Amino acid sequence: MNAKGKIINDPVYGFIRFPEPEIMALIDHPWFQRLRYIRQMGSAHLVYPGAMHTRFAHSLGACYLMGKALDELKAKGIDITTEESLAARAAILLHDVGHGPFSHALEHTLVEGISHEYLSELIMNKLNEEFNGALSEAIEVFGQSYQKPFLHQLVSSQLDVDRMDYLNRDSFYTGVSEGVIGYDRILQMLTVKDGQLMVEEKGVHSVEKFIVARRLMYWQVYLHKTVLGSEMLLINILKRARILAQDGVTLPCSAALKHFLYNQISAEDFKQDKSHLELFCMLDDVDILSAIKSWCTHHDKVLSKLCNMMQYRKLYKVVISTDNLDELKGQKTKVASEQLGISDEEMKYFVFGGITSKDTYNTNNDIIRIAMKNEDVKDLSAIDNPVVNEALAMPVHKNYICYIQP
Amino acid sequence: MNAKGKIINDPVYGFIRFPEPEIMALIDHPWFQRLRYIRQMGSAHLVYPGAMHTRFAHSLGACYLMGKALDELKAKGIDITTEESLAARAAILLHDVGHGPFSHALEHTLVEGISHEYLSELIMNKLNEEFNGALSEAIEVFGQSYQKPFLHQLVSSQLDVDRMDYLNRDSFYTGVSEGVIGYDRILQMLTVKDGQLMVEEKGVHSVEKFIVARRLMYWQVYLHKTVLGSEMLLINILKRARILAQDGVTLPCSAALKHFLYNQISAEDFKQDKSHLELFCMLDDVDILSAIKSWCTHHDKVLSKLCNMMQYRKLYKVVISTDNLDELKGQKTKVASEQLGISDEEMKYFVFGGITSKDTYNTNNDIIRIAMKNEDVKDLSAIDNPVVNEALAMPVHKNYICYIQP
Amino acid sequence: MNAKGKIINDPVYGFIRFPEPEIMALIDHPWFQRLRYIRQMGSAHLVYPGAMHTRFAHSLGACYLMGKALDELKAKGIDITTEESLAARAAILLHDVGHGPFSHALEHTLVEGISHEYLSELIMNKLNEEFNGALSEAIEVFGQSYQKPFLHQLVSSQLDVDRMDYLNRDSFYTGVSEGVIGYDRILQMLTVKDGQLMVEEKGVHSVEKFIVARRLMYWQVYLHKTVLGSEMLLINILKRARILAQDGVTLPCSAALKHFLYNQISAEDFKQDKSHLELFCMLDDVDILSAIKSWCTHHDKVLSKLCNMMQYRKLYKVVISTDNLDELKGQKTKVASEQLGISDEEMKYFVFGGITSKDTYNTNNDIIRIAMKNEDVKDLSAIDNPVVNEALAMPVHKNYICYIQP
Amino acid sequence: MNAKGKIINDPVYGFIRFPEPEIMALIDHPWFQRLRYIRQMGSAHLVYPGAMHTRFAHSLGACYLMGKALDELKAKGIDITTEESLAARAAILLHDVGHGPFSHALEHTLVEGISHEYLSELIMNKLNEEFNGALSEAIEVFGQSYQKPFLHQLVSSQLDVDRMDYLNRDSFYTGVSEGVIGYDRILQMLTVKDGQLMVEEKGVHSVEKFIVARRLMYWQVYLHKTVLGSEMLLINILKRARILAQDGVTLPCSAALKHFLYNQISAEDFKQDKSHLELFCMLDDVDILSAIKSWCTHHDKVLSKLCNMMQYRKLYKVVISTDNLDELKGQKTKVASEQLGISDEEMKYFVFGGITSKDTYNTNNDIIRIAMKNEDVKDLSAIDNPVVNEALAMPVHKNYICYIQP
Repeated sequence: MNAKGKIINDPVYGFIRFPEPEIMALIDHPWFQRLRYIRQMGSAHLVYPGAMHTRFAHSLGACYLMGKALDELKAKGIDITTEESLAARAAILLHDVGHGPFSHALEHTLVEGISHEYLSELIMNKLNEEFNGALSEAIEVFGQSYQKPFLHQLVSSQLDVDRMDYLNRDSFYTGVSEGVIGYDRILQMLTVKDGQLMVEEKGVHSVEKFIVARRLMYWQVYLHKTVLGSEMLLINILKRARILAQDGVTLPCSAALKHFLYNQISAEDFKQDKSHLELFCMLDDVDILSAIKSWCTHHDKVLSKLCNMMQYRKLYKVVISTDNLDELKGQKTKVASEQLGISDEEMKYFVFGGITSKDTYNTNNDIIRIAMKNEDVKDLSAIDNPVVNEALAMPVHKNYICYIQP
Repeated sequence: MNAKGKIINDPVYGFIRFPEPEIMALIDHPWFQRLRYIRQMGSAHLVYPGAMHTRFAHSLGACYLMGKALDELKAKGIDITTEESLAARAAILLHDVGHGPFSHALEHTLVEGISHEYLSELIMNKLNEEFNGALSEAIEVFGQSYQKPFLHQLVSSQLDVDRMDYLNRDSFYTGVSEGVIGYDRILQMLTVKDGQLMVEEKGVHSVEKFIVARRLMYWQVYLHKTVLGSEMLLINILKRARILAQDGVTLPCSAALKHFLYNQISAEDFKQDKSHLELFCMLDDVDILSAIKSWCTHHDKVLSKLCNMMQYRKLYKVVISTDNLDELKGQKTKVASEQLGISDEEMKYFVFGGITSKDTYNTNNDIIRIAMKNEDVKDLSAIDNPVVNEALAMPVHKNYICYIQP
Repeated sequence: MNAKGKIINDPVYGFIRFPEPEIMALIDHPWFQRLRYIRQMGSAHLVYPGAMHTRFAHSLGACYLMGKALDELKAKGIDITTEESLAARAAILLHDVGHGPFSHALEHTLVEGISHEYLSELIMNKLNEEFNGALSEAIEVFGQSYQKPFLHQLVSSQLDVDRMDYLNRDSFYTGVSEGVIGYDRILQMLTVKDGQLMVEEKGVHSVEKFIVARRLMYWQVYLHKTVLGSEMLLINILKRARILAQDGVTLPCSAALKHFLYNQISAEDFKQDKSHLELFCMLDDVDILSAIKSWCTHHDKVLSKLCNMMQYRKLYKVVISTDNLDELKGQKTKVASEQLGISDEEMKYFVFGGITSKDTYNTNNDIIRIAMKNEDVKDLSAIDNPVVNEALAMPVHKNYICYIQP
Repeated sequence: MNAKGKIINDPVYGFIRFPEPEIMALIDHPWFQRLRYIRQMGSAHLVYPGAMHTRFAHSLGACYLMGKALDELKAKGIDITTEESLAARAAILLHDVGHGPFSHALEHTLVEGISHEYLSELIMNKLNEEFNGALSEAIEVFGQSYQKPFLHQLVSSQLDVDRMDYLNRDSFYTGVSEGVIGYDRILQMLTVKDGQLMVEEKGVHSVEKFIVARRLMYWQVYLHKTVLGSEMLLINILKRARILAQDGVTLPCSAALKHFLYNQISAEDFKQDKSHLELFCMLDDVDILSAIKSWCTHHDKVLSKLCNMMQYRKLYKVVISTDNLDELKGQKTKVASEQLGISDEEMKYFVFGGITSKDTYNTNNDIIRIAMKNEDVKDLSAIDNPVVNEALAMPVHKNYICYIQP
């Protein structure tokens, strides 16, 4: 590290710099280093083999974009102090630190109902103690209580640097180049009015394109049927393991994973007893992957079959449709039960259905504000002749079923 | 040229090959070589300095994409003969051969009301004579009379390889990277049903993104106010020159340009007398640019002032708005007439207004067809939850005024 | 999978196709799927966070380049049968299948002295049995016994598609964009003469640039001092674990890893007893990473300290120099031994030195042949005014020391 | 233009900013605007159709790189004042302002023996008068008389931002992607010691790669045989026109071109009489191209034939070789003279030969200095095991002949 701070090579942005020693101290912390071993896209690499990138790289990237956004706003005369810059950079750097491995699967099983944002905040508070209060302002920015709302909006809103980075990065690593967004133009069009983050009118088409690219990434990548199926497989593995654990069955795995398999920890528990958080911060992809590998030979047939499916990529067949799929599910259940000879209770691990949904633009919570040339402020969906209109704000629901082909 | 045909380095696609000797013969023809000296984007380089690319490069690029599209369709089992491939490749190669220099300006002045498609067809017929009928099938494909409509649709429709190339190429050369489209995925999603070109359902988001990228290119580049202003300046120069010519004033310029300045040639004339077409095929950017340069010192004050404005990039100020701009135009006229002391007749070269319009997706003529998984065929704007909906099909009109700041 | 075969999105090359069902069957095999969990660059991601790509993706990429190379040669009239194409594609696909996790470290410890090429060949033979002899020709190509030497040279030589892919891919994922090579031009310049692979004279500068890019990647990435240090750390962990295992100390880890820690398996053993190979094919990065994690709390202080250094990225300090470093090593040893109070025997895990070496172009074994226009064949270093000359063929030796800063 | 200055979209670097009003005033000057109409690579677009980029874009790009280089040096603590920054930026912006159209051809004919650097300096002095001395420091930097040599070295040396930009830009627009250089890493490795520009030791491989990329661009692009042939054709056109002019033959062309065709202007003349410089600053590609077009029908058979060859791309056949080509030249002369029936005097326009030469690294004038870690300064070719060695510093001579195939 020289006078210009640490420089890291990032395939997406090139050289990125971390001039602040405070930021480098956070990056070096074991709880942040842990993110090196948590992939951003979980099991999606089974469909997109390039998608091995980590939450570590994403967090650095988002921190870089935050720096660029703040520089742009300062160049436009928006008042942002050095402390506020540092707070916003720290907040975005740590925004994902509460993610566990295969986060979506985990939130449906081992830490059911506990959001990663909640855990991120707990971790930030813990780090704040370690760093003697140096993160207080960052926590306010993250938690939306800081007096300048635009700083929080840069961390978390429909146009935050988190999304800008992950859309770009996921697009880059999956090779779905259509998801690439023109982040530099969007950053350049950002402005602040009455404390709110907004986009200059002439940037409206860039933002429209960003929304459409996001829509494409959702339907083409994040909700890709095989990606969905591999995620459901992981959820089923953890669900089955949980049930076995509750029945007292032995499941070889790491100490940290054991803790969350054999105990049911509530959000409140995390607050009361620090040891839960410490063990949670020991978990990464390696714990899950090594468990699955060793469970491939477990005596519970359901568990071992599911683990073998995952380990050797014999994934569910998946159908996604706006049509009702109950009949198809019935057929597939019948075929499977005839051939596998397993109980109805167990069948739900091998043939099952559900609903997936996604809105293109959410007008309920935080809208994207456009600063019109005539000084008005409009919602993105309320400009003349909008691409992103009310209809797109409605969530789209699709049915899916997953089944095995015996 | 070796066994694999001629290879050309294209900055957009890398190496592109022309294995057919027939195609190479067309490329080598003087009338096609002429496109080397006609820029694709006319005077837009005054705003985007990188945009110096030519209709020559665009035509080669479109021909390359046609080859890729045909290969994809053939791989899907669509019946396309070697002759049809060659015809489609020749048709797209020559689709722009009827463009004059600064085409949009020319079509409003020197060859008023004569479309470049009309001239392309005349030229193709002329070449067909030279090549002893080898282009007959290409002309049918171009002219929409060939029995397989999808071949024409690849040449000219809302999803043709012409647009795919020029959007990509213009985006590349202007540096407006947001206009880049994922042409390879779109090509891969093309299919043919009942003779019609369509897109597989799973490609719908790629097409949506293509439409939104096109919309962005229109508002951000093609209708950029300074681009619009420079094009209007060129139109005014040619209009003024025309009027002077009709009054018998001497205007130094090339013989070919002189022919079209001093004579009014109709579409019918082009057909009757081959010499018009031959002279037209002598025109390129150099004729216009050298004329403007020499007219900078012309004794007609209006002409020389306009030419100086163009040569030294002292362009009109331009305002574009959905509001009525009549009042503003009145003010600007008053200021200009007070300071310049020119007649009302002449003032219209220096302060004037108009309407510009653009639709994002045109549902009137040729729609984009989506081949649904359930065998239906839908219009792109009729799928569930479309980005490209009926509202976007309505043309957007904007008022503009151009004026000089004395 | 449709008529055109399976298509995979690769961030480096875009869409890549696998039209042959035989190749797809190999990819689907558990022993090949295992490569999904073996990173190409081992622990280098600790320096280049983007470098998470796997041997799986590299093998697919090399197979893609092989297809392109064969197409080029066929277009030049070189006789290559469909069977030979398939054999060459299978050979390159499987060329790395014998890699274990963190291969370089492993080859110095657990499978000491057994090369991955040796294991790849054993595995290919085993697969050949499973696939009823379908791989016989591929094995001949891989093993250099096939009658057309150029096929083997495409798999393994100083200009093989293996190197082309890994240089490109490593460059892409590390973000060291200078390592990117113009693989398409090199492929296009390949030719065959008297059965030998060579490069047309006009491609000589592209090859020179390839060699220089490779040199840059070596000194800047592969032999980067921190990369070197992290690899040495891993070697030391495995060495220590091995010694403890031989002393009968219990080391929690997966069954497969245990097998290689507690037994010394020779190359000959691998041939005699199939179970060694089967267990080897169970090993991937997860086994190593989960072991290191659990050994962080091992009672052996040396092992646990080394594992903590790795897990939390407290890496060795490293000095690389052409100067003699013995004195510096002495100083560092003194400082460390004073502060750590550990035995001389144990000190060698914390302060140690060695020699690293690299040649830019190796003229001993297989040279790069240039097909001169005048029909001669020259070695790359024997052309007029070569960049890659004899001097560059000499290996460069550098001294290094690694030490901890207590 | 807002508070952040003018922003220009550059396809090579993305958004580039010109925050200084002084720089914008220079860009807006007619003599700089002229560079919009002078292509960087002259007639090379006849081989590489994408290479239409202008000296205007190159000058902006070099100015951008200068800004980045200065920022890097300042971040390393090198003392550079705001005035010096501005001077260096102005110097590089104007470094090519003395280029005429098709510069290499012109320097061999119309302004024989007068270098573009000489004219650039004259023009800078003239602009300095107009801008009341604001360019004095820039002129010192340009002319090597400023007290801090590294500023001049950034403008003009073997590692200047001029080369960095044109290699990158030419590589980008020709589509010869192998010529792309890692300019950002080189910029980052720059440093200053005792007032001299140098490269940090760890940047040595990047510089080697830069030199090899430059070598590749020379042999593959700049000295490509067809590029060479088209340049010789242009030289012959201008030579013939000159001879005709001296004989009093009428040659239709622009007034500015006429001035230089019919008069022989010396370097001294340019200084004595300002009108020469003013007329020179009227010349751009359009003057040459329109002249060639109109001379296609000139009654001098030699001139009209040469012009037709250029206009319709019937270029010379060219052979380049280290062998002696006299015999081949004799044969081609014989064939041509038999068939064309022209005089020996005229034959030299249609069959002729010469020598082309290029050194990869020039150790005579200004070397590339490497700042070694141990405080030494070494020449790039004097480091251990150099790629760029003494042998590469020797110029390579090649013979060529151009001839027509009647």
